[in-house]
Amino acid sequence: MNEKIMNLDHLGIKRFFNLDTNTYRDGALPSETKELLALTASAVLRCNDCIDYHLEQCAKSGFSKDEIIDALNVALVVGGSIVIPHLRHAVATLEILEEDGTLTESNSKSTSR
Amino acid sequence: MNEKIMNLDHLGIKRFFNLDTNTYRDGALPSETKELLALTASAVLRCNDCIDYHLEQCAKSGFSKDEIIDALNVALVVGGSIVIPHLRHAVATLEILEEDGTLTESNSKSTSR
Amino acid sequence: MNEKIMNLDHLGIKRFFNLDTNTYRDGALPSETKELLALTASAVLRCNDCIDYHLEQCAKSGFSKDEIIDALNVALVVGGSIVIPHLRHAVATLEILEEDGTLTESNSKSTSR
Amino acid sequence: MNEKIMNLDHLGIKRFFNLDTNTYRDGALPSETKELLALTASAVLRCNDCIDYHLEQCAKSGFSKDEIIDALNVALVVGGSIVIPHLRHAVATLEILEEDGTLTESNSKSTSR
Amino acid sequence: MNEKIMNLDHLGIKRFFNLDTNTYRDGALPSETKELLALTASAVLRCNDCIDYHLEQCAKSGFSKDEIIDALNVALVVGGSIVIPHLRHAVATLEILEEDGTLTESNSKSTSR
Amino acid sequence: MNEKIMNLDHLGIKRFFNLDTNTYRDGALPSETKELLALTASAVLRCNDCIDYHLEQCAKSGFSKDEIIDALNVALVVGGSIVIPHLRHAVATLEILEEDGTLTESNSKSTSR
Repeated sequence: MNEKIMNLDHLGIKRFFNLDTNTYRDGALPSETKELLALTASAVLRCNDCIDYHLEQCAKSGFSKDEIIDALNVALVVGGSIVIPHLRHAVATLEILEEDGTLTESNSKSTSR
Repeated sequence: MNEKIMNLDHLGIKRFFNLDTNTYRDGALPSETKELLALTASAVLRCNDCIDYHLEQCAKSGFSKDEIIDALNVALVVGGSIVIPHLRHAVATLEILEEDGTLTESNSKSTSR
Repeated sequence: MNEKIMNLDHLGIKRFFNLDTNTYRDGALPSETKELLALTASAVLRCNDCIDYHLEQCAKSGFSKDEIIDALNVALVVGGSIVIPHLRHAVATLEILEEDGTLTESNSKSTSR
Repeated sequence: MNEKIMNLDHLGIKRFFNLDTNTYRDGALPSETKELLALTASAVLRCNDCIDYHLEQCAKSGFSKDEIIDALNVALVVGGSIVIPHLRHAVATLEILEEDGTLTESNSKSTSR
Repeated sequence: MNEKIMNLDHLGIKRFFNLDTNTYRDGALPSETKELLALTASAVLRCNDCIDYHLEQCAKSGFSKDEIIDALNVALVVGGSIVIPHLRHAVATLEILEEDGTLTESNSKSTSR
Repeated sequence: MNEKIMNLDHLGIKRFFNLDTNTYRDGALPSETKELLALTASAVLRCNDCIDYHLEQCAKSGFSKDEIIDALNVALVVGGSIVIPHLRHAVATLEILEEDGTLTESNSKSTSR
């Protein structure tokens, strides 16, 4: 689908997508921390597609399920009960990521710190 | 002012404030990471008072100015140009935190990782 | 699905769900008034799952269809035409609640006042 | 200031303001219940000016401080900690309404039910 | 579905729908410009149903695909990457509007200016 | 203040600001139409600083007061009564733009179309 957006051939949109990709590269903060920030931002802004994308990135970055759930809890408290349906959605996506092996038991960013 | 809210003596509100405080204690994620998540969430939800509170907590947690700015950049890209006035506000608050010594040159969470 | 969230065994999330449940118990305001407040809040925040949950609670609390529609009208005026798709969703849910007998003709909170 | 908006002489805006006023007249729900709904909606949408307006209407309608606080607690739980600065603002406004006699001790909607 | 809303027979809701329709008639701004404004507003508020409705109106008003995409780019920059899933949705709807002939090659509002 | 943001020397933020500026250059849509879109988007997202910036750009682009008010009416209907405080703010800013000569009687984009 992003291919279709690229095919629109709108320079501004192409630049935005490029900027978006670069945002999550290592900088003052490591890439994985920025993925966790984006996950929390997506949850309080209540965007399921965005939550799914950043959940996958967080799992690939090596965060454990418990760490991801702890980040989603911050989103729940900041954003309130209106976030609950998106928490449910996230938990269902996490199950899929466990089943397909993206999210593994040995994942843990914070214990390695 | 929070004292006045406590004086309302509403059990639900008291419990929410207690829950809110506990959210940022060390858990699966360390306290400081959760403060950075809350800062980003506050920025995309565009709440200056919340931004100021979590900026101070992030500075006290040892994040450097560059790391905090990198987190705010995630908020800018996720939330768009509507976040710019709040980015300006955050930069002014960071100056105050530098001047009063809360934010120091030696701060750095990610280089120590 | 809430069971799966409970199974996450995250103390903060469990406490939030407990707090959320207690919010709607009788207090200075009766339980049913708080359900109507939450319905309106869900509508202006445009969350269909939340609207459905609170519609059912409002119907069970004895509010009539006309009273519920009057509350949704407040949400429409406060939140604007962006609320219209959620008003449509709510009307479809109300039909289901009428068909299954949750919302009855004899319901009326305000006429009994 | 609303006078200046009327002086713009834009038919659509005038009609919106007229519609807005009529929304809070007695209907299937009594006027005061709709003011309380609008207060909660204003709090979750985080608009201080709107909160102040509806707080005054709720106080004039006879709601007690405890009832108003209970409504704001629903907003806090639905909308999350991002609502806290607006809760603080509301508490300050309630103090003013107590001092000027708009909000009185004898107010109580729900005990009369 | 709007018929069902009309059948609710709520005077306030009927008036709101009437007001909503009149908003997009020629005024100080031509009708088509106001449809483009509503499309952008719908995109930053992230409402797919609203986006679809105003996309169709914009196509019928004679805007070209490039002009509509340029408007959506404004929404993307103002609203941030959280708008991307809605941009994807809009691009899929534009394809349908091209296939059914609502959006035609010869459309162009700005070249005629 | 934007100078201070540039001095942060964060490549991502600099690129976002550059992208933001380029968004409003003539493209498939003329620059002034895009300023009007951004004004409406800023109003429904309820950001006074953003409203002020785009009001000035719209006035400089040659839109008349009536055309700008007609755009703000679209924002009011889409965004609801929660937009009213921002409409008030915009009307006060328009007065300043009239007084300093930025907004002139002879302005009119649509009559020239």
